[in-house]
This record gives sequence, structure tokens and C-alpha cells, in this order.
Amino acid sequence: MAGNTFGVQFRVTTFGESHGPAVGCVIDGCPAGLVFDEEFLQQEMARRRPGQSALVTQRREADWVQVLSGVFEGHTTGAPIALLIPNEDQRPRDYEHLTDVFRPSHADYTYWAKYGDFRDYRGGGRSSARETAARVAAGAVAKMLLRQHSIEVRAYVSQVGHITLQTPYTELDLSLTEANDVRCPEPAVAEQMAQLIRQVRKAGDTVGGVITGIVCGCPPGLGEPVFDKLHADLAKAMLSINAAKGFEYGSGFAGAAMLGSQHNDLFTTQSGSIRTLTNYSGGIQGGISNGMDIYFRVAFKPVATLLRDQPSVNTAGEPVIVKGKGRHDPCVVPRAVPIVEAMAAIVVADHWLRAAR
Amino acid sequence: MAGNTFGVQFRVTTFGESHGPAVGCVIDGCPAGLVFDEEFLQQEMARRRPGQSALVTQRREADWVQVLSGVFEGHTTGAPIALLIPNEDQRPRDYEHLTDVFRPSHADYTYWAKYGDFRDYRGGGRSSARETAARVAAGAVAKMLLRQHSIEVRAYVSQVGHITLQTPYTELDLSLTEANDVRCPEPAVAEQMAQLIRQVRKAGDTVGGVITGIVCGCPPGLGEPVFDKLHADLAKAMLSINAAKGFEYGSGFAGAAMLGSQHNDLFTTQSGSIRTLTNYSGGIQGGISNGMDIYFRVAFKPVATLLRDQPSVNTAGEPVIVKGKGRHDPCVVPRAVPIVEAMAAIVVADHWLRAAR
Amino acid sequence: MAGNTFGVQFRVTTFGESHGPAVGCVIDGCPAGLVFDEEFLQQEMARRRPGQSALVTQRREADWVQVLSGVFEGHTTGAPIALLIPNEDQRPRDYEHLTDVFRPSHADYTYWAKYGDFRDYRGGGRSSARETAARVAAGAVAKMLLRQHSIEVRAYVSQVGHITLQTPYTELDLSLTEANDVRCPEPAVAEQMAQLIRQVRKAGDTVGGVITGIVCGCPPGLGEPVFDKLHADLAKAMLSINAAKGFEYGSGFAGAAMLGSQHNDLFTTQSGSIRTLTNYSGGIQGGISNGMDIYFRVAFKPVATLLRDQPSVNTAGEPVIVKGKGRHDPCVVPRAVPIVEAMAAIVVADHWLRAAR
Amino acid sequence: MAGNTFGVQFRVTTFGESHGPAVGCVIDGCPAGLVFDEEFLQQEMARRRPGQSALVTQRREADWVQVLSGVFEGHTTGAPIALLIPNEDQRPRDYEHLTDVFRPSHADYTYWAKYGDFRDYRGGGRSSARETAARVAAGAVAKMLLRQHSIEVRAYVSQVGHITLQTPYTELDLSLTEANDVRCPEPAVAEQMAQLIRQVRKAGDTVGGVITGIVCGCPPGLGEPVFDKLHADLAKAMLSINAAKGFEYGSGFAGAAMLGSQHNDLFTTQSGSIRTLTNYSGGIQGGISNGMDIYFRVAFKPVATLLRDQPSVNTAGEPVIVKGKGRHDPCVVPRAVPIVEAMAAIVVADHWLRAAR
Repeated sequence: MAGNTFGVQFRVTTFGESHGPAVGCVIDGCPAGLVFDEEFLQQEMARRRPGQSALVTQRREADWVQVLSGVFEGHTTGAPIALLIPNEDQRPRDYEHLTDVFRPSHADYTYWAKYGDFRDYRGGGRSSARETAARVAAGAVAKMLLRQHSIEVRAYVSQVGHITLQTPYTELDLSLTEANDVRCPEPAVAEQMAQLIRQVRKAGDTVGGVITGIVCGCPPGLGEPVFDKLHADLAKAMLSINAAKGFEYGSGFAGAAMLGSQHNDLFTTQSGSIRTLTNYSGGIQGGISNGMDIYFRVAFKPVATLLRDQPSVNTAGEPVIVKGKGRHDPCVVPRAVPIVEAMAAIVVADHWLRAAR
Repeated sequence: MAGNTFGVQFRVTTFGESHGPAVGCVIDGCPAGLVFDEEFLQQEMARRRPGQSALVTQRREADWVQVLSGVFEGHTTGAPIALLIPNEDQRPRDYEHLTDVFRPSHADYTYWAKYGDFRDYRGGGRSSARETAARVAAGAVAKMLLRQHSIEVRAYVSQVGHITLQTPYTELDLSLTEANDVRCPEPAVAEQMAQLIRQVRKAGDTVGGVITGIVCGCPPGLGEPVFDKLHADLAKAMLSINAAKGFEYGSGFAGAAMLGSQHNDLFTTQSGSIRTLTNYSGGIQGGISNGMDIYFRVAFKPVATLLRDQPSVNTAGEPVIVKGKGRHDPCVVPRAVPIVEAMAAIVVADHWLRAAR
Repeated sequence: MAGNTFGVQFRVTTFGESHGPAVGCVIDGCPAGLVFDEEFLQQEMARRRPGQSALVTQRREADWVQVLSGVFEGHTTGAPIALLIPNEDQRPRDYEHLTDVFRPSHADYTYWAKYGDFRDYRGGGRSSARETAARVAAGAVAKMLLRQHSIEVRAYVSQVGHITLQTPYTELDLSLTEANDVRCPEPAVAEQMAQLIRQVRKAGDTVGGVITGIVCGCPPGLGEPVFDKLHADLAKAMLSINAAKGFEYGSGFAGAAMLGSQHNDLFTTQSGSIRTLTNYSGGIQGGISNGMDIYFRVAFKPVATLLRDQPSVNTAGEPVIVKGKGRHDPCVVPRAVPIVEAMAAIVVADHWLRAAR
Repeated sequence: MAGNTFGVQFRVTTFGESHGPAVGCVIDGCPAGLVFDEEFLQQEMARRRPGQSALVTQRREADWVQVLSGVFEGHTTGAPIALLIPNEDQRPRDYEHLTDVFRPSHADYTYWAKYGDFRDYRGGGRSSARETAARVAAGAVAKMLLRQHSIEVRAYVSQVGHITLQTPYTELDLSLTEANDVRCPEPAVAEQMAQLIRQVRKAGDTVGGVITGIVCGCPPGLGEPVFDKLHADLAKAMLSINAAKGFEYGSGFAGAAMLGSQHNDLFTTQSGSIRTLTNYSGGIQGGISNGMDIYFRVAFKPVATLLRDQPSVNTAGEPVIVKGKGRHDPCVVPRAVPIVEAMAAIVVADHWLRAAR
């Protein structure tokens, strides 16, 4: 119950610390007979990998995934799939000055409050975003499952700092998302975002952002009606990503200002299928998918690591100065796009399997 | 795995339909020896009860809770606590015209997609907000546990439609929340909100809103670091409430526009305790409480039931007109305040017990 | 995690104490569309009910089950099924002399060690076999599910004290099980068992016994391969019944003395189906059903309540005499037959749903 | 829910196939601050390792465990502990003749019934006892936790075929268990057992046996009262071990023939502690430990792999002859002793953590 497992039928358990030998995951519940596409798995890892561009951290990791179990002759067997991602570019020495110091807005203090002196302080240890490499690996397997059923999960950067992409997702060409380092499908906006990121990096600062996610092709009937509503599980999945501060789906916070007569999505029949004319519901009603697109937004705070000295305290409660050094992302959202997709894919795959009875 | 249970150590399972004999819950994991305050339990029920004021639904329910087990001589015994709330003012006849019709933006269609013809269509059946009576009962027990440890959970209405309470919670007198029917602690704003609700009710319409929640007195160290982050579980809990569309904590979506140098909460020592100078983190860092106030906002859409005729389709996919009748709330947020508190209390009680080792 | 829930897909949570207002259960995960046979439910309750014959406890309970939720117009809806069984013949006064005394081989001492002074001492409170009424109710629903798929669960008494029914189950007419009060399908042996039970009752004593259970019609493929082996879950289910001391399936303990060349069940093809020539495996191989009959035996100790005075200690550790009074069974196995069936049905229904994907 | 996880607070997830790259496990829930004794871990692995003596399989594995996470500077951190055991002496070629053949009393047929053609047939794949290497590794960590609290888990061979060690465990010198290859603490009986094993091996046959387990030093109060009784979880744990057919604790099946007046364990006070004069209860009453020794017996069938040709069928249902070849144990119990200890340690550690609140 220490919370390192996500999902009910498609259960992902992750392990590993930033500067230990490896991170990885075990997926339990993936059905037998799924074609296991290792090349696709590696492509997904490459999307999250550090060191891809000037906009992200310069830690260098190949992130080559070893498939230890659960796959035989190119197919899943129904046994647990263990995926291992060795850490190659650890630099534990970089963190020796932090053994008893709490970096502002990091998890150093709260881990110390929870685990005492036994935390692995090196690069945040278990709290490091390095853990999300395991999520992306698991998410790639979830995507393999979903694409068999023509369900597709996409995400893109829709805000960096004050720069916002206003165009709704329905009017965007999402195939352009990967065409730039920011992962914003509108090239002109992407360029502004990239400039802002370069600028805050130069200033030793960081900046927040928003990612929009979409699930297309989800059939009606996924999700459970009370506590495990499809969007409730999406919310938990998204908020479990490092630096996430908010989640909304469909009309979201804007829906709070609307009238029912505006907001209600009227049903209609299109080529024999029941559809809605509008989609303020965000593809989910009563916690269960209705066959329309599911879309949502996730807010991320600015990364807490700055290339500036900051005042703080140590484990004795004494004032200290935290030096601004170490490798980090100036803005988390470009690399978080595949993580958002991975977690959404895990949620939908999990509910697919829960419903498939 | 049908999702009617919430929590890990403090596990709440709810049951019951809107127009069946009763709703209720079983709480498993409440420790032995807790003073069981039945009067407080009834008070909490009264806060959620329908028919309290002109602003809410006119269904009449005493919502008197029967304690069936787990309590002996005024204390909890460690055995499961079963709480039963009989339904008194059922009017299943009111729903006979809906047997094969999908009300817009309700769960009628998705339940039908999931369960086929076997759904209880009367007043939404299991999808009705009547289910939340069981949550409030369970939440009252969670609050009994938390107040033993001086942890307090509060909530209030901070937005109705376009009317927004701008004052931050730290500058409000939260003891005024219950002084008006809207449950907004700023009387002048509350009155505007009440007017808006009366106006949309008169128009046969409904309106959305936002509730702000606060957890005070939570010690450092609650929450699990990876998937079961304290705020991730709060997000799931809040999004599992009927009509919820979004969740944010601490800086939330506004944090996405901030720089790290603005957003970082610097640590300091105050009378021997480690505190932060600002609280953009919302009392949680790395998924674990840091001892500062936890605060969050939950967006609710306008209620889907309108006193207007609406076009829709039936189970055969044929066009129909859904009549505007039945008892309902013109705005969900006043009655959702105790529900938000209940779910927050359940999450924090659950993590209190998970951490208490 | 307080252990009042059993099952993964077909999840049964029980609640209630021996001398509180009611016992009951919530079943979560029962699929929608199952014909709900209330008459059958009551029949099953009648089989476990106290006061049926001179061989069992004289407590008088109608054990009439109230169906609170999850059933609509004669079918299950997929929502949780809450079943309530009011306690009618409580006599808490009978137990007032036991407030601070530990009855030998009861759970009084261990509950006190676990829960402190807050235990409900009346008739064992939560540890009473009265809790099994809720299991029989849940088991009846599991049986409704299984019989749709032609799976049948049967049990009978195969030993009371030193009197053993030697005939293997395959040579018995199990329709005779309910023809006598002992529930042993061989009338002559049943009569010897009944005599022994009457004799120990007269002596103020009690006696143990063994129940044999059989699951017929289970298709191949049920069970999970590693920890949740079908027989491992059966073992847990059986050992969770009050007074159970042992479990074996197939060849059981006798198999330990056998050679592999004797014990191996050779495969053959019969009318197009793969079968085994012998069935030492007990219908389960590698934790998964193979289509043959599943059979198992459960040992029960003699009931701990005696109509004799016994020396013991109290909460202060001082010597006391426990008076021999109160209503109880002289032998647990006749009434435990429907409980064994209920738990077996719950296990098989659970794995049926887990496999049905 | 595919059943590869055991435990609630001390959760062990295993992965890996007999002839894949590795087996291993992830332990989630081990508290921070435990001294991690890698030397002890390796010693435990050596006890289960194949090729130790002439009595066991000749597969050669170093079984060197790689600690991938959750341990830092010699202590556990509270993060998941991932343990990896590479497979070195795989011989997948040995199994090519078995791709479509069902070995008698193995899991070949049931896996095929469950997973279809996607099973890893090499050496039983996931159903191989090789999986138990991961359990022994996890059990070693559980033992590290238990010994901090002076709880000790021991097991020994008490029966091989018809040769039974009659002496009760209380009169044995358990320190002699590891002094011989059979792991029977009575040297003379051990020698008879060894002879029997050599004899059946020579005959190309196998033989079953029984292991007795003991937990000493367990304080009162461990276990949950209803479904998760301490002995119910032990039963499940034991029956989840390959080839296990039965479990009994305390008086076990013999208790079924006893009278209550014989069987009741009378309480007394010894040096301030409450104890029982006899221990037919096996240290557990009402599912909760009472402070006396916990003891139990586990029956194992003869290994199904014979060095003889056996008739069987293939996936097409056609008759085939299964050749008697491959490396295997002639009797499972000597190597199962550390596995029984490991699973018992995991159960007790799990309940220790569940109770520690």
C-alpha cells in the first residue's frame, strides 16, 4: 500500500531511483497474445529521453529497455512483463552537498519527514522524474493494447508560461506535435514557447505549462460509475506525474460559469451510432465513456531546480544556501507529453480490460 | 473492482440507488477506540440533506442514519461500521417516462451502454447524487478520526456561474460559511450567488460553480510518493463526485504561467518547526504533506436536469423529447460543500492511517 | 485492509456482530442481468439457520434477508448488492459475565490483545459464527451466477469425531445430503454421527469433524498461475471459516506418501474433450482448473463453548472460572456445510469473472 | 488482478520464466530504516539453489541477486525493493519437443486452456518452480524485518513418502535441519528419507512429502478477524507453492476427531504473560496470534516430471508419448523448506505491518 502500483486489471508497479542502478516496472494483467512491438517501445522511450534538444536536461541516457519476462516469440504470454531501464549517466557526486539540505519546492523535506534519515537524497532519489521513464515504458505496452482496438492517445503542449495555444484541439493538425522540440502542434506558437524556454534557461530560471490530452476511438461503456469514474482515474493518473498541479476534462473550470441549457450535450443519431452534438462532457458521462473524444488539460508548475542560489534550511532547521547546480529541465512540459500519453493509455487500457467482460 | 470502494486503510464501500429502499456504506479499517459521535454524524447529514432551502431540490429526506455495526458502548470496535440511510421520499413513478430515453448529459446512455437493459432508470438509479449521502456519513466518521489529531477539513462555495469570490481563503472568516444557504463565507457575494441561483431556477435552467477546500493541521509526512500522492488521491476523490469537472491544488492552473523563481516556496524555521514562506505548493510536496495548509478547488458543471423540454434519442436511437420535470437542484455547489469535505476527510484519514506506522 | 472483504471481481464485504442490530454484506462486482432468485436465497439461509434440529444451537433466527440495492425488476443491475439480515434473538445479557474474561480457545483474548478494551464481547461480537450468515447470503448470489454456467458446488459431512465416511464422493448419492440433520449422504453413517453428537451434547461437550466439498462443471482455465491459484484461494476461503483447522484438495496429505508414477493423472481424449484418467490433481493443475471435478476436505475443531465450568484468566491475568452456559452447537459441521458451499461458490464465481475476459 | 502479487502491506510481486533472461521480484511496503543484510540474502538463495546435492535437480544456477532499488547505504529507504536473479543455466532446447504436448500433472494443459498458444512452454515457463527463487529473495527481506522484532520462522522436512518423523517439533533440535541434504532435523530419519529419495530417483520416479513450519516469538494481536485470518493467509501462501496439496495448523485434521474438553487450550498466567497450557490452537485464535508458537504442516505431491515415458495427448487431442528427460528434483521437499519459510515470513511480516498501527 506504499503506492508504487497503478491500475486494477492493467497493473503497473514501478521501481528505481534517479541515481541507483536502474529504474523499471512490472506490468501485471496484460492479456496473452498481444503483438509486442519492441521498436515502438524504444521510440516511445526516445520521446521522453533526456538530452534530446537544447530545451531539456542534458543528462544523457540511452534508455534502452530490457524485456525480462512476459514476452515469448514476439507476443505477450499473460505473465507479468518486467521492463528494466539501466541508469547510465548517474552522477551521485553532484548531490553530496545536499545530504542534509532541503531544496525549495522539492520533495527533500517531505521525504525526510516521512522516511527519516534513510532517504536516497541523490537527485531526489525516488521522487525524481527519472521514475517516469518506467511509466513511459509501461504506457507503450498499454498503447500496443489500445491500438489493437483502434483507440489512440495523443497529447501536446498547449501552454508555456503566459504563452497559450488558443486553438481547440479539433482544429489542430496533431501530426505536427513531434515536429518541434516544444511539442506544440502550432509551429508559430511553438516557436514563441521555445524562445520563452530558452530565455528562462538563460536566466537560470524555469517556467510552467499546460498539456492537453485526447483519447480518440474509445467506445462507449468504459469506466466505473462511482469512485472509479474514468475521469477520476485520469485525474489521479495525471496528478501523480511530477509537478502536476491541476486537471480538468471537457468543459472543466470554464464549465463552472455555464448554464445547463448551454452545457448539455444533446444526443443525436449519426449513421446508426448515438453521438452528441456538442462535447462539453469531454466524452465521459456519469464516469463512463460515451464514445465521443475524451479530452483534458493538465497544469504543470515550473521546475523547482534553479540555477540560482536559494535560501533554505537543513535537517537541523538551520538556515543554509542551496547552490544552483545540477542538470535539469527549464520547463517540464515538452518531455512530459509522452508521460501524459503513457498515463492516459494506462488508465484507458485498465478500464478497457475492466469493461471487457 | 466495480469501483464502489474508496480508500486503502480507511475503506468506504457505498451502495444503494436513488429510488430503492436505502443507500448506505460500510467503512472498513476505522481503528478501535474512536469516540463515535452520533449527533455530529446527524448534523453532517443535515448539511447535505435535500429540501433545506429554496436553493436546493425539494425532495424530502430525514436522512436519519442507522448504525448497524462496528460501534459498541459509544466507541468504534475496529469492526466494519455499516451505516444505513433509508430512502423515504422515493417517487419512482416520476421516472416511468424515462425507461428507454436518454436525458442529455446524464448517465442514462452510458449506463445503458455498459449494463444493457438492466439499469435502474429511476432518478438515475446508482448514478444519482443520492449516493453521496453515504459519502457524507462516511466522511463524518473520517472527521471524527481527524479531529482527534486536530486536523480540520473545511470547504465553501467560491464561485457560482460568473460570480466569483476573489478573496483568498486565508482572509476569509470560514465560520460564516454555514450562515447562508449558498455556503459562501462572504455574505455580500453569497447574496449575489443566491440571486443568480434563484434566477436560473425561475428560468428552468441550472448553473455551475466552484468549491474551495482546505485541510488545516495536517502534519508533515502524509501521502505516498509515486502514484498515491496525497493530491492525486484528492483529485480522484473530488472528480468522483457527481458533476465535478476539474481539480487544482496550490497554485493550480495559475502556476503554469509562473516562473520557478516566483513559485518556489522557501523554507524557514518558525518556533522550531520547518515552514514555508509562501504556499504555492498547497501544503504538498512530492505527493507528501509538508505541514502547511492544503488547499484546492473543484469545478462543477451545471446540473443536467432542466425544467425545459429537450430533444434527445431513445434506446432505439430514435428522436424523442425529454420533458422537463422532476425535483432537482438548480446549482449543485451549495449541497456539494459537505460532500467535498467528506471526500477530503476520507482521503486524509486514509493517508493518516497509512502513515501511522 | 482490515480483512472484511473477500474476492477480487466478485467482492464480498461482510459486517455485523452477533448481538448488534444486524449482520449483512455488500457484493460488488456481480454482473448486470443475472436473474435474482430471492426464494433460493432464503432457502440457502434456512440451511444455515440456527434452531433447525436438536443437533444444533437453539438460538432462533428467521434470517430473513432484505435486499437493499443492486436488484431491479428481478435482475441484478451491476450495482453493489447490499443484503441485510436483522438479528432477532440477541440475548446480550447472557454475556455480561464475560466482559473481562477470556473463554478458552475463543477469540476473546486475541481480540483484547488487538483491539484493547473496545471489543464487543457479547457472544464473541464480530468473531461469532453469526457473521457466516452474511457469507451464506453472498454465496447464494454466487451460486445464482454459477448455475447460469452449469457449475455446481456441493458439500457434505464426511467425518464427525472418530466416525468417518470412507466412501469416495464419486460413489455417493449427494442428493441425500439434506435428508438428515447431520448432512452426511450415507444414512447409516449419518445416524452414527447424530448419535455421537447427541452423546457429546448430553455430556456438555463438543466434537470436531470434516466437510468434503465438490465443484462440478467447472470449465478448464479458471484460476491464476502464481499466488492466486484456484486452490490457494479455496484454501484461504475455507480456513477463514470459524473453527477450520485444515484444508486439502485432490490427493491432499495422502499424496505426500505417493510416487509420481502413481500420482500423475494421464491425459486422454473423451468425446472430443481432454480429460484425465485419474484425478489426484483434484481438478486443478498449476493453480488452474482442468475441467475435472474439484474436490477438497476441510477439518473443523470441536466448538470451544462447553456446558462445563472451565478455569481461565481475566483481563488482569487473574484466575477465574468460566461458567458453562449459553446457546451453542455441539458440533459445527452440520451447519457449516452451507458455509463451505458458500465460500467455495464465492471463490469459483470470483475466478469465473476474472477469467471471463 | 492476474495474481502475481502477494501481501497487503508487505507486497511482493514476482516475475520471470524458467528459461527467460531472469526471474525477480519487487517488494513494495518494506519500511525505511531496515538494515539490509545482503550476505544473509545470498545465504537464503543458496539454500534453495538447484544443484546443491545429489538429492536435487542438477540445473546449475548461482542465483546471485542484484539489488536494483530501495536500498541506500545499507538500509532500506521505504521505496520499492527490486531484486533481480538472472537465469544462467537455461536450456530452452531441452523443451522443444514439448511445444504442443501436455506433460501429465503439469500445468501445460491448463496454461494452454487459459492463455491459448501464447504460453512459454520452455520448462513450464511461468509455472516452473524457478519462480520460487524470487519468493526466497523476498522472504529473506521479510526475515530481516521479523528478526528485528525477535520473530523467527523455521521449517523442516517431516515426511518423505511413507517415512514420517513422529517426534513433535518441540522435542527436536531444529539447528540440525541444515545439517543434512534432506533438511530433516532427526539424523536417523533423515538418512532413511535420503535413501528413499535416491531409490526413487534411480527408478526414474519421484515421491511426495510434508514440511512442518514454525513461527516463534510472534506477539499476540497479529492477523485480521474475518477473511484475512493469520492462518487463512498462511494457508493461501502455502498452497500457492508449486506441488502443495494440503495445509493444517495446530491440531489440524487430527483435531476433527477430538472433543472440545480435550482440545480447549486453558489460559494461565506465566511471569506476567497470558499463555495457554496446551497449544492445539497452533498459536492463533479467531484468526489472530495469541503469543504461543504458530505451527503448521504442508503436504506436497510427488514431482510430476518422471524419467520415464508416459502416454499423453497434444494440443490437437491426439495421443502422444512424453519422453522422460530433463533436469528435475526427485522429491520437492528438501528444496521447498526455504520456500515454506519465505512464504511464512512474508505472511507474518505483512501482518506485522498491518497490525503496527
